[in-house]
Amino acid sequence: MNFASDNAWGAHPAVLRALADCNDGAMMGYGADPVTARAEAVLREVLEAPGAAIRFVATGTAANALVCAQICPPYGRLYCHEGAHIETSECAAPEFFSGGLKLVTLPGEDGKLAPQVLAKAIQRGAGAGLNGGRNGAVSITNATEWGTVYTPAEVAALARVAHQGGLPLHMDGARFANAVASLGCSSADLTWRAGVDALCFGGTKNGAMAAEAVVIFDPARAEGFDYRRKQSGHVFSKQRYLAAQMLALATDGLWLDLAARANALAARLAQGVLAAGGTLLAPVQSNAVFATVPAGAHAGARAAGAIYHLWPDKSAEGLDSVPLRLVTAWNTPDADVERFCGVLRG
Amino acid sequence: MNFASDNAWGAHPAVLRALADCNDGAMMGYGADPVTARAEAVLREVLEAPGAAIRFVATGTAANALVCAQICPPYGRLYCHEGAHIETSECAAPEFFSGGLKLVTLPGEDGKLAPQVLAKAIQRGAGAGLNGGRNGAVSITNATEWGTVYTPAEVAALARVAHQGGLPLHMDGARFANAVASLGCSSADLTWRAGVDALCFGGTKNGAMAAEAVVIFDPARAEGFDYRRKQSGHVFSKQRYLAAQMLALATDGLWLDLAARANALAARLAQGVLAAGGTLLAPVQSNAVFATVPAGAHAGARAAGAIYHLWPDKSAEGLDSVPLRLVTAWNTPDADVERFCGVLRG
Amino acid sequence: MNFASDNAWGAHPAVLRALADCNDGAMMGYGADPVTARAEAVLREVLEAPGAAIRFVATGTAANALVCAQICPPYGRLYCHEGAHIETSECAAPEFFSGGLKLVTLPGEDGKLAPQVLAKAIQRGAGAGLNGGRNGAVSITNATEWGTVYTPAEVAALARVAHQGGLPLHMDGARFANAVASLGCSSADLTWRAGVDALCFGGTKNGAMAAEAVVIFDPARAEGFDYRRKQSGHVFSKQRYLAAQMLALATDGLWLDLAARANALAARLAQGVLAAGGTLLAPVQSNAVFATVPAGAHAGARAAGAIYHLWPDKSAEGLDSVPLRLVTAWNTPDADVERFCGVLRG
Amino acid sequence: MNFASDNAWGAHPAVLRALADCNDGAMMGYGADPVTARAEAVLREVLEAPGAAIRFVATGTAANALVCAQICPPYGRLYCHEGAHIETSECAAPEFFSGGLKLVTLPGEDGKLAPQVLAKAIQRGAGAGLNGGRNGAVSITNATEWGTVYTPAEVAALARVAHQGGLPLHMDGARFANAVASLGCSSADLTWRAGVDALCFGGTKNGAMAAEAVVIFDPARAEGFDYRRKQSGHVFSKQRYLAAQMLALATDGLWLDLAARANALAARLAQGVLAAGGTLLAPVQSNAVFATVPAGAHAGARAAGAIYHLWPDKSAEGLDSVPLRLVTAWNTPDADVERFCGVLRG
Repeated sequence: MNFASDNAWGAHPAVLRALADCNDGAMMGYGADPVTARAEAVLREVLEAPGAAIRFVATGTAANALVCAQICPPYGRLYCHEGAHIETSECAAPEFFSGGLKLVTLPGEDGKLAPQVLAKAIQRGAGAGLNGGRNGAVSITNATEWGTVYTPAEVAALARVAHQGGLPLHMDGARFANAVASLGCSSADLTWRAGVDALCFGGTKNGAMAAEAVVIFDPARAEGFDYRRKQSGHVFSKQRYLAAQMLALATDGLWLDLAARANALAARLAQGVLAAGGTLLAPVQSNAVFATVPAGAHAGARAAGAIYHLWPDKSAEGLDSVPLRLVTAWNTPDADVERFCGVLRG
Repeated sequence: MNFASDNAWGAHPAVLRALADCNDGAMMGYGADPVTARAEAVLREVLEAPGAAIRFVATGTAANALVCAQICPPYGRLYCHEGAHIETSECAAPEFFSGGLKLVTLPGEDGKLAPQVLAKAIQRGAGAGLNGGRNGAVSITNATEWGTVYTPAEVAALARVAHQGGLPLHMDGARFANAVASLGCSSADLTWRAGVDALCFGGTKNGAMAAEAVVIFDPARAEGFDYRRKQSGHVFSKQRYLAAQMLALATDGLWLDLAARANALAARLAQGVLAAGGTLLAPVQSNAVFATVPAGAHAGARAAGAIYHLWPDKSAEGLDSVPLRLVTAWNTPDADVERFCGVLRG
Repeated sequence: MNFASDNAWGAHPAVLRALADCNDGAMMGYGADPVTARAEAVLREVLEAPGAAIRFVATGTAANALVCAQICPPYGRLYCHEGAHIETSECAAPEFFSGGLKLVTLPGEDGKLAPQVLAKAIQRGAGAGLNGGRNGAVSITNATEWGTVYTPAEVAALARVAHQGGLPLHMDGARFANAVASLGCSSADLTWRAGVDALCFGGTKNGAMAAEAVVIFDPARAEGFDYRRKQSGHVFSKQRYLAAQMLALATDGLWLDLAARANALAARLAQGVLAAGGTLLAPVQSNAVFATVPAGAHAGARAAGAIYHLWPDKSAEGLDSVPLRLVTAWNTPDADVERFCGVLRG
Repeated sequence: MNFASDNAWGAHPAVLRALADCNDGAMMGYGADPVTARAEAVLREVLEAPGAAIRFVATGTAANALVCAQICPPYGRLYCHEGAHIETSECAAPEFFSGGLKLVTLPGEDGKLAPQVLAKAIQRGAGAGLNGGRNGAVSITNATEWGTVYTPAEVAALARVAHQGGLPLHMDGARFANAVASLGCSSADLTWRAGVDALCFGGTKNGAMAAEAVVIFDPARAEGFDYRRKQSGHVFSKQRYLAAQMLALATDGLWLDLAARANALAARLAQGVLAAGGTLLAPVQSNAVFATVPAGAHAGARAAGAIYHLWPDKSAEGLDSVPLRLVTAWNTPDADVERFCGVLRG
C-alpha cells in the first residue's frame, strides 16, 4: 500500500522491452540514431505538431530548468504558482541553469493560477525597473502539484495574459498524461493550440525508468538549446535509451492508458477517504489525493503498513484531522487501493 | 566495422537483466533503495575504500563537472592536459557547474601530464595573484584521451605535486576499467593509494546504458555534493536504475573482463595497422588506437564500410598518410577486427 | 523639496576633499596603498574589531551580493524579510553572484523579522531535504527598508536563532549609520557583539560618492573573498579613491553626524505628516517616513514641486489617503523640510 | 621613477574638478541625470556614432566581462589573443558573467591576432559540434597588452573574418586613447567603421579615478544590458560621478592629449633602453615598453629606486639580459623618464 509518490514504482514492461529491443548493434550517439528519430516522430504525431523541436532528457528537474533557462534571461522574472515544483522541489535548478532568474510566486486556489492575478503581477513587474529584473516567462504545471487540472480554456486564458505581457508560457507536464487522460482532450488542444510555447512531457512518473521530453513548439525558440543540454551534462551519448522509453510510452496511446488507470485509482481513494469521514482539500482530477482523514483512520492505515506523506507538515501529533497526500501510479495494485479504503474505514 | 567510439555500442546483457530484475515493486526514490546500497557496497569493495562517498549519475560530463565544481571554487584554476575531455568535449560544463573556474591546459606527450610541467604551472599560478584566480585543483584522465595509461607510480607522482601545491587530484575515469585491465593493478593502487581524491568511475563506455559513479574517497570532501547534483538535475528519482547498471558491471569483475576484451581488440588493431605499413601515434595501452595509415589503406577501409574518425582533422584530402582514431568496445566483434586488418592490408 | 531617495543627493565636502588629497603621486593599486590601510584601521576602531577583514566596493548591491555568495552556497537557502533590498531591488544579484541560492522571504511587521518566525522557517528548511536546498544564511537590514531599526537585543535574538540553525548572519547596513545614530549604541554592540557575522557598512547613502565597506568579523570566513571581488569586476585598481571616501566618513564620527541630521529631519517630516492629518505606516526611527496623507495634501505637495515616491503603488488615483515614502539625506535643506510641512497642511 | 603600471597614478585635475562641479544639489539616480546625458552626447560625437548605446561602469574588468556576456552565450566560444587581459588578468570574469563561455586563445606576434589564424580557428570551432561549444564572439585589445597597435585596416580585416563566421567583434579599449593618439586616426575609423561591434572605452588608465564607457554601436544589440549591469552590481545610484569623469576626459580632446603624452614618454624610454644596450621585444606604439636590458642596467635602475615589473617572470636571477615592462601614464614626470634613461646607461 505505497501511495508515497509516483516515483516509487518501476517501469512498464513495454519500456523495458524497448530498451532491450534497441540494444543490439552500434548506432550513432548523441541523438543521431533511428530510435530517436522514431520517438520524435511519434511524439510529434501525438502532439499534432510536425515542426516542434523535441529533445529527450532523463529527469524532470533537468527538463524544467533547461526550458526556464532557454526562455528566460538571467535577469528575468519567471512567474509561477507558489506551490510549483520548480519553486519547491528543484533545489533552485531554474536559477542555477539560467544564471540568476528570479521566481515570482503567486497564490492560487487548488494550485492553479488565476489570469487576473497573473496579469496584475506581470503589470507590476513591468514597472519594476532595473531593480526588479525584467519580465521573462510564465510557468504552469499540468496536472498541478495539487492534483488538479487546467482545462484548455484555462490554459488559453493564462497564455493570453502571458503573451500580452510579452512572456512565453511553459508547461511543466511531469503529469501531463494524467491531465490529458482526465480531460479527454487532445494534447494539441491542451498545449500549443492553447498558447503553450514549451512543454515538458513527463515519462518518469508514468511508466518510464527515467525519461522526459522537452517540446519547443516553435523550433526558432530552440536555438542553442542543445548546447545548454550538453553544457549541463544532459546529453546522453547513448541517447537511444532515452528515446526508446518515450517511444514505448507514446506508441498506441500507452501513456494515456497508464495515466487513466492511475487517475481512476485516485478517484477510488478519494471515495474511500470520504467514506471514512475525511474531507478532500482539493478536487481530485488526476492521480493525487490531498485530504484530511480522522486521526484514527490515519493511525489504522499506518498500523496496517500503508506508506504515504503527511502534507504539508511531517507530523500528525495532536491533530484530530490529519492532512495527507496519496499518489497512485500506473501500476498501483487495485488490491492495495481497496485494502487501504477498508483500513481507513476501520 | 564500427570503430568510431565506445559510445556507439549497446549495453551488456547483464546490465539489461539487472534493470529488469530491480523493476518490480515500489522502492524509495532518490537513492534510498536497496539496489543503490548494494551497488555502493560492491564498488567500495572493488576500490577497497569502505568509507568513500559514492554517488551515481548518468553521464560522464555530469560526473566530471560535478566533481570539478565540488573541489574547485568559481575563481579557481584547474590544471589538466590540453587534450583533456573536460577541456575539449564537455561544452565548458566544468566552468558552468562551478560558476567560472578556469581550465589551465598543459602539454604532455601521449596525453599524459609530466610532474615537473605540472609543478611549474602550479608554482606560476600561485604567484598569479588575484588576476589569475586561485590554484584550485588538478585533473587527469586514466586511461587518457590518447589511449595511454598512467601507472600507479605516475599517478602518485602527480598527486604529490598537486598536494604539495594544496590542490586535490581528480581522475576522469571514463575508461578507468581499461586502465586497470591494462595495468593489472588494483583499483585502490591506481586511485586513493596513489593520492587520487576523487574518481569518476565510468560505466557508459564499458557496457552500461548510461551510468557513472562519482567516488570521493574522503567523505568529508563530499559535503554539499548531493545538493549540487540535485540543483543540476542529476538526481534520479528512480535511482535504482542507475545503481543496477553499476552493480551489474561491478559484480564478479565483469567491468574488468569487458575492458580487457576491448583492450585486446585494440592491440590486435594496432598490429593490423603496423602490418599495413602504418605508424602508431601513441602507445596503444587501452582501447584506442591513434595511428596513421597509408592513404590507400584508408581508402580501402572506407570503401569496405569501416566507420572511424579521422583525427584530429576531419579531412584526408591530399594526404599520403592519414591520421585516424580507432576505438574498440566491450562487444566489438572479433570478426570486424580481423576483417578491418585485412582490408587495411589491401 | 526632494525626498525621493538618499541616493539623489551629492557627496559631503569632506569626501571630495579626501579624494583630492590622495590624488597626488603614484601608489600601489589593488588596495596595497596607505589610504586603504588607514581607512581599514579607522573602521576597525569604529567597530572595535581589530581583527576584522574589511574590503571596499563601490555599490551596495555588490557589497550585499558578494557577502551572500561568500557565506551561502549555490544550493543554499538565504532567509530574509520579504521587503529586503536583496529581494526587491538588486535584480537577483545574490542569486547571480552565488550561482543559484534561493532567497526565502518571510513576513514581519514594520520590516523586521521576528525570531520565532525565523526559527520556524529555518526548522522547516532543515527538513526540506535535497529538494529545498540546504539552509545557508540569514540576512537582515538595519536600518530596515521600512525605516525602522533593530536594537542590539533584537539583533542578538535573531543571531541566536540563526546560529542555532548553523547559519551565519549578514547585516545589510546601507543605512547602518542611521540605525546607530538612532539608537545611540556602539557599532560593536549592534554588530559583532550581537552576533552579526558580516556587515555591509554603507557610505553611498550617507555622504559618499560611491563607497561601501564589507566587514567580515572573523577573517577566517573571508577566505577567497578577494577572488570573488575580482571575478565580479569589483576590485578597483586605484582603490585609494574608494578608501578615501570611507576614511573621510569614518573620521571623527562624521558618518554619525550626517546620519543623525538626516534622522532628525525625518522626525520633523513625520510631525508634519501628522499635523496635516496623515498617519504613519511604520515607526519613524531612521531617515525614512512611510505614511499616508490626505489626497489634498498630496496634491498640494506635488503642485508645489515636491518630489517623492508613492509607496508601494505608483498611482494615487481615486485614493482619499495617499501612501508615500519620504527619505531625507545628510544634506536635505532644513528649509525644504519646513516648506514641505507647510505645503502639506495646505 | 614608477613605471609599474598606468594604474599607479592618480586622476587628472579636470576629472577632480568635474566631480566637484556636479556635486551640488539633488539629481535623479541610476543614469537619469544631466551629467550622464552630456557625457553620452560628447562620447557619441567623439565616436561619430549618434545612435550608439553608451553605459558607464567603474572598472575595465566589469566593462569587458559585461560585454562578453552580452554578445556571447554561456555555451559560446570567444576567440582572443593568448595574452589578452580577459584571459590573463580578470580572474575568469568573462566566464563568470556569461555563465560558462570558453575563451579560445590564439597566438599572435606582438600581441596581435592575424586574420588567417583567426579564420582557421573559427572554422575549426564551427565544426566542433556540441562538444566544443558554439562560436560566440571575437575580442581584440587596442592598444594591445604588448603595447602595439592595430591600425584601422588591421581591425577591419579581423572584423571581416569575425563577421563572416557570424561573430561580433569586441574591442577592449582600456588603452584605446593611446591607440588613437598613436595612429592619429579618428575613433570612428578605428571602431565602428572598421567593423567593431562593441568597444570598452577606457578612462581609468588615462586620467580618470575609475571610469570606463561601454559602447555598443548598434543599440539593438544592447537589449538587456542594463539588467546585466544591475544584476552584477555595476549600476551606480549616483551615476553622475562616473559620467563626470568620462565627460571631463572626452571634452576638448583631453583624453587624446593625455594619451599622446604618455605615448611620447614611452618612446623616449624606448630610446633610453636602446642607448643602454637593450633590445625591444615588441614595437613601442603606445605607452608600454617591453624590452630586455643588460643585467647591470637593471641592477642600477633598481638601486636607484626605479619601480617596474619584470616580464613575464618575476625573477632576474642569473640572467644577462633582463626582460621587463615599462608603462608610462598621463602624468609620469619628464624628469623621471630622463633620470631612468640616465640610470640605465650607468
